[in-house]
Amino acid sequence: MITNIEQKLIQGLGLKKNRKAHQLFVVEGIKNVSAYLDEGYVPTHLFSTENIDKIDSIHISIKEMNRISQLKNPSPLLATFSPDIHSNLPDKGRLIGLDQVRDPGNLGTIIRLCDWYGINHIICSNDTVDCYNPKVVQAAMGSLARVRCHYTELNDYIKTYDAQVYGTLLEGNSIYETKFSSDTLLIFGSEAHGISPEITNLIQHRITIPKKSENGPESLNVSIAAGIILSEMCR
Amino acid sequence: MITNIEQKLIQGLGLKKNRKAHQLFVVEGIKNVSAYLDEGYVPTHLFSTENIDKIDSIHISIKEMNRISQLKNPSPLLATFSPDIHSNLPDKGRLIGLDQVRDPGNLGTIIRLCDWYGINHIICSNDTVDCYNPKVVQAAMGSLARVRCHYTELNDYIKTYDAQVYGTLLEGNSIYETKFSSDTLLIFGSEAHGISPEITNLIQHRITIPKKSENGPESLNVSIAAGIILSEMCR
Repeated sequence: MITNIEQKLIQGLGLKKNRKAHQLFVVEGIKNVSAYLDEGYVPTHLFSTENIDKIDSIHISIKEMNRISQLKNPSPLLATFSPDIHSNLPDKGRLIGLDQVRDPGNLGTIIRLCDWYGINHIICSNDTVDCYNPKVVQAAMGSLARVRCHYTELNDYIKTYDAQVYGTLLEGNSIYETKFSSDTLLIFGSEAHGISPEITNLIQHRITIPKKSENGPESLNVSIAAGIILSEMCR
Repeated sequence: MITNIEQKLIQGLGLKKNRKAHQLFVVEGIKNVSAYLDEGYVPTHLFSTENIDKIDSIHISIKEMNRISQLKNPSPLLATFSPDIHSNLPDKGRLIGLDQVRDPGNLGTIIRLCDWYGINHIICSNDTVDCYNPKVVQAAMGSLARVRCHYTELNDYIKTYDAQVYGTLLEGNSIYETKFSSDTLLIFGSEAHGISPEITNLIQHRITIPKKSENGPESLNVSIAAGIILSEMCR
């Protein structure tokens, strides 16, 4: 059973202002929730519509789950966790920087990609979509439990960053002719406008993915570009 | 002005059965529509809410556009076109094969990616999502005007294909140690189940993207995997 107060609280966590006020976010799905539990996250709520092996949850009806779920097809398990606020902003290593990435699906996919390539920190401009947005949490598929998103003034951060800053721009050097140093901050810009002019000025290495067709598209999706460049950087 | 008959027709084209019956699909957005016009597609309907340079369209109100648009934020231009049914199934060259890819966003992104890398044909299993689904058309951002999706029995097709067949599987050889021949059919499987067993049996080269983290995700999104492998194949 779920109380009215709990139901209202969880429904409200679809909005950023409520997530911030309560310092909570929602995770749905057995695999997804398990990834957080495995990383030592302690759930403040854990509701399920069926018995789930090794997970001690409060049983609710499917009707109740439908009321609190953000998914079209609710899963049998929903948890709320507090964000990890204990890790510091890293100042070296291989990092991703995101400048105004707005689409939750893109951020979620980039988080999963970083997790695949062993990159543990993403530095996000303050106007990048919130990583605890339900659509980001869903698209990241558990990887958000292992990859930390830091929100900050990206240009101030870049000025303090101790190593090489790379940015993807349409008129950069080919990624296939680029040598990536082991300490690298790799910046990606917004879906609509690319990297903002202030950030562009701080980039030391302008790189690009060469297009192989004459009349092809103007650009690639930001998460696809991130995949191609991370593959090249980490090969 | 738009007639009731036209309005009903265009609204109905959100469904595959209606697109098939009328042999029409909808394209929205100035850049997107322009890509089809540039490729010689002739619109059967062309509606706009404002004057658009070089495009001769029927003026309708924003209210009327809202009624026929599939977008949350309708654009000023909407067209209907007939699918290109004149190109034959290619039997060699660099091709992509898709086995049961269901997510419209993934298919749209893969079409855009093929367009970037100069790959003009995608061979889709009959149960892959329809490329004229409005979400695919939107995600492909004009590239569907240049890249042809063929729907067929994929395993029958593979048996007739004259060159090397590559497939992405979790237990394949590293893509960084794979030599891609110039005639290549590169197969990707469904988001949930990967490549089906029947198709797997027909693959000559099993390849994989090496994971660089110990506890990372089980897999990458199919469109991200396609981006990484196409980059490697076409570099």
